[in-house]
Amino acid sequence: MNYEPLKGFREFYPEQQWGKRVILEKIEEVVKLFGFEEISTPSVESLELFKMKSGDEIVEETYSFKDKGNRDVVLIPETTPAVSRMVSEISKISTFPLRWYSYSKVWRYEEPQKGRMREFYQFNVDIFGTKNPVVDAEILYIAYMIMKNLDLDNDVQIRVSHRNLISSLTNGMCDNNKLYKLIDKKHKIPANEFDSSLKEICPNNELYIKIKKILEIKSPINKGIEELNNSIEGDILKELNQLEEALKMYGIEDKIILDPSIVRGLLYYTGIVFECWDKKEELRAIFGGGRYDNLVGLFNKTPIPAIGFAIGDVTLELLLKKENKWPVYKEKKGVYAILIYENYLGVAIKMITKIRNAGIKVTFDYAAKPIQKGLEIASKGMYEYCLIFGKEIEEGNVIIKNMETKEQITIQQDMVEQFFIKELNKKAIHGINDAN
Amino acid sequence: MNYEPLKGFREFYPEQQWGKRVILEKIEEVVKLFGFEEISTPSVESLELFKMKSGDEIVEETYSFKDKGNRDVVLIPETTPAVSRMVSEISKISTFPLRWYSYSKVWRYEEPQKGRMREFYQFNVDIFGTKNPVVDAEILYIAYMIMKNLDLDNDVQIRVSHRNLISSLTNGMCDNNKLYKLIDKKHKIPANEFDSSLKEICPNNELYIKIKKILEIKSPINKGIEELNNSIEGDILKELNQLEEALKMYGIEDKIILDPSIVRGLLYYTGIVFECWDKKEELRAIFGGGRYDNLVGLFNKTPIPAIGFAIGDVTLELLLKKENKWPVYKEKKGVYAILIYENYLGVAIKMITKIRNAGIKVTFDYAAKPIQKGLEIASKGMYEYCLIFGKEIEEGNVIIKNMETKEQITIQQDMVEQFFIKELNKKAIHGINDAN
Repeated sequence: MNYEPLKGFREFYPEQQWGKRVILEKIEEVVKLFGFEEISTPSVESLELFKMKSGDEIVEETYSFKDKGNRDVVLIPETTPAVSRMVSEISKISTFPLRWYSYSKVWRYEEPQKGRMREFYQFNVDIFGTKNPVVDAEILYIAYMIMKNLDLDNDVQIRVSHRNLISSLTNGMCDNNKLYKLIDKKHKIPANEFDSSLKEICPNNELYIKIKKILEIKSPINKGIEELNNSIEGDILKELNQLEEALKMYGIEDKIILDPSIVRGLLYYTGIVFECWDKKEELRAIFGGGRYDNLVGLFNKTPIPAIGFAIGDVTLELLLKKENKWPVYKEKKGVYAILIYENYLGVAIKMITKIRNAGIKVTFDYAAKPIQKGLEIASKGMYEYCLIFGKEIEEGNVIIKNMETKEQITIQQDMVEQFFIKELNKKAIHGINDAN
Repeated sequence: MNYEPLKGFREFYPEQQWGKRVILEKIEEVVKLFGFEEISTPSVESLELFKMKSGDEIVEETYSFKDKGNRDVVLIPETTPAVSRMVSEISKISTFPLRWYSYSKVWRYEEPQKGRMREFYQFNVDIFGTKNPVVDAEILYIAYMIMKNLDLDNDVQIRVSHRNLISSLTNGMCDNNKLYKLIDKKHKIPANEFDSSLKEICPNNELYIKIKKILEIKSPINKGIEELNNSIEGDILKELNQLEEALKMYGIEDKIILDPSIVRGLLYYTGIVFECWDKKEELRAIFGGGRYDNLVGLFNKTPIPAIGFAIGDVTLELLLKKENKWPVYKEKKGVYAILIYENYLGVAIKMITKIRNAGIKVTFDYAAKPIQKGLEIASKGMYEYCLIFGKEIEEGNVIIKNMETKEQITIQQDMVEQFFIKELNKKAIHGINDAN
């Protein structure tokens, strides 16, 4: 009998879950400032939906199966197709641009390894309904600000290119599909192997040298465009120049790196593409995205331009931990109640209920125990205060111990609520404060 | 090509997602007061895990399939088995009781109908490691307080029984399995059909009459126990009396209804069981749960007692909407920026960036438009303020319009940040306030 979690699937205990939540909130905090709203999509979809976007090869890498109604379905490997469908469904009644984010589990049937799980979370950020290049800059600025809010801005590099930058150079002189596949694995293979493969795909020596040189560019976009030295096509240069102008307005033209070796799905992207990498290049990409102006149109014939990116949780967590920036567990645990004599149980519950109704967290296990035992538990559990029900109750008092300062006071029972409201700065919770 | 969502799966647009979040937060707010911490579990598990808990019949009702490694796996129909496994994994290093909650998607392969989806959310609340009957009362009190915090306490009834209450009466004189199955569908079949089936299962007339009478009890637990009139076994009576005592300490002995017709999984529950129903009985159960002291022990041989319940989102939403208590959409949308002349784009982005860095939400679509058009969009989008970049910029000013009062002011550009901080009462966000 195998009751273990499946390979590549994770359980999150309170401390880990707490860290996840803190990171999620820091990301949400940024996108909300830009007016993004949250949506969510189903976790199971028809396989056709993903074949449409990514071609048949996606089947191999996904959790696809036949359901009991004999439908070909799949655990979603990403949310973009479903989000695009949602946009198409309401395109007639919406005011564009729409700014949507989502946070959801996605699944890939791949061998689990460093930075890659079979089940993981993706945070998706997309803007629908405008081709304005300033929106491309906004998306990159949001991506940058997310990294900044996670204190990672100095540890990563956001690299941008244009989906057609390299293909516009080849002018039919080499197989662009093969070329893009090769470039995509450039950082994974030795330089000489890359060179000889490139030569094979682009036998024309002048072109070979040109591509090789352009692929070496890795400069802030304002300098990078100069380095391209007008060797690329007018339209693409124009788009890159517009992006640079817009990035200047956001003040991050020196933070965004032009890197023509960034290539992503040819089938899918239509304009700028980008990825975020740790500067030390020890990990996979932290996030990736780009402009995809044709996807929504596949649903309702009316093309609606779009741009967005997705952050996976696994590599992000690896990077945060590597840089010692993963949030240190400090859940505010509130009050731990210690009952010394069983016969005060009723009094204790009444008081605890009262202070909970004022919005104070109280943990109570009801079992009578010696004070030392209770303090040990509270200390191990990182509670902020102990509320002790001992024989002082006979005089209408209880003991409160501050677990940080170790100060201990004896206080009248009817002052306890006020004490904690003041100390823990809580407000009575709507609907709870008038209970009983 | 079918790109539609699958039957029984839901998409959540911003307004719906916002409502979900509000409800989730109200539930979380309650459990956190009792010291609960969040965990999360995988969404795919080996099928064995669920067979262990619920028997082979579970296979039919689930999204089970063979994965590409030929494993029998399942989209989780509930989280309890995985949560119990997590407890068993850390049982040696934990301080019990553990109080854990989780919120996750679960899946059932059943015909979609009112109150039943193939994909839905469950909020799980469990306490592990104590048999203390006061903990049973705490769980019921938490359940009650969740309903109260959702303003549903007067619309629902929490009904409790003991897993062995009815079976202890039969004393081997009828087939308990058949009997429990019959009782479980009592409210779905006509009374005379129920009676004749009951008679068939329990042919002894005296017993038949006794069970029939006991099944009619539906009184607050303090009165309900009296009505049982000592006709049940000593141990169960004792447990019910202890529960009543503990409920009194929490002051809800008159809110919890004794209802011997509540029966839940015989294989699984070991003590008190309970369900929450809308008083009008127009919907399915809002939540259900009970004590299950043997499940954790199946993993590591050391039994660890447990009690908990799960709230599904579908019926809860139906009830909230039926009672007009679903939260009215009032997301705080912040500021909508209107650019009248394109040449002020750079100035606008700079100012907007500054006020976003102070924690103010600003939505900006960059396209120059007449003021009327901009105000229409802002009004439709329920924004609180408009920030208008018109020719006043030449004098260093912008216009701010309060969309509620319709008041409009002309204000110096360098006063805008302070204005919004004061009006929208926001604080600069850590990590963002020092950007650029």
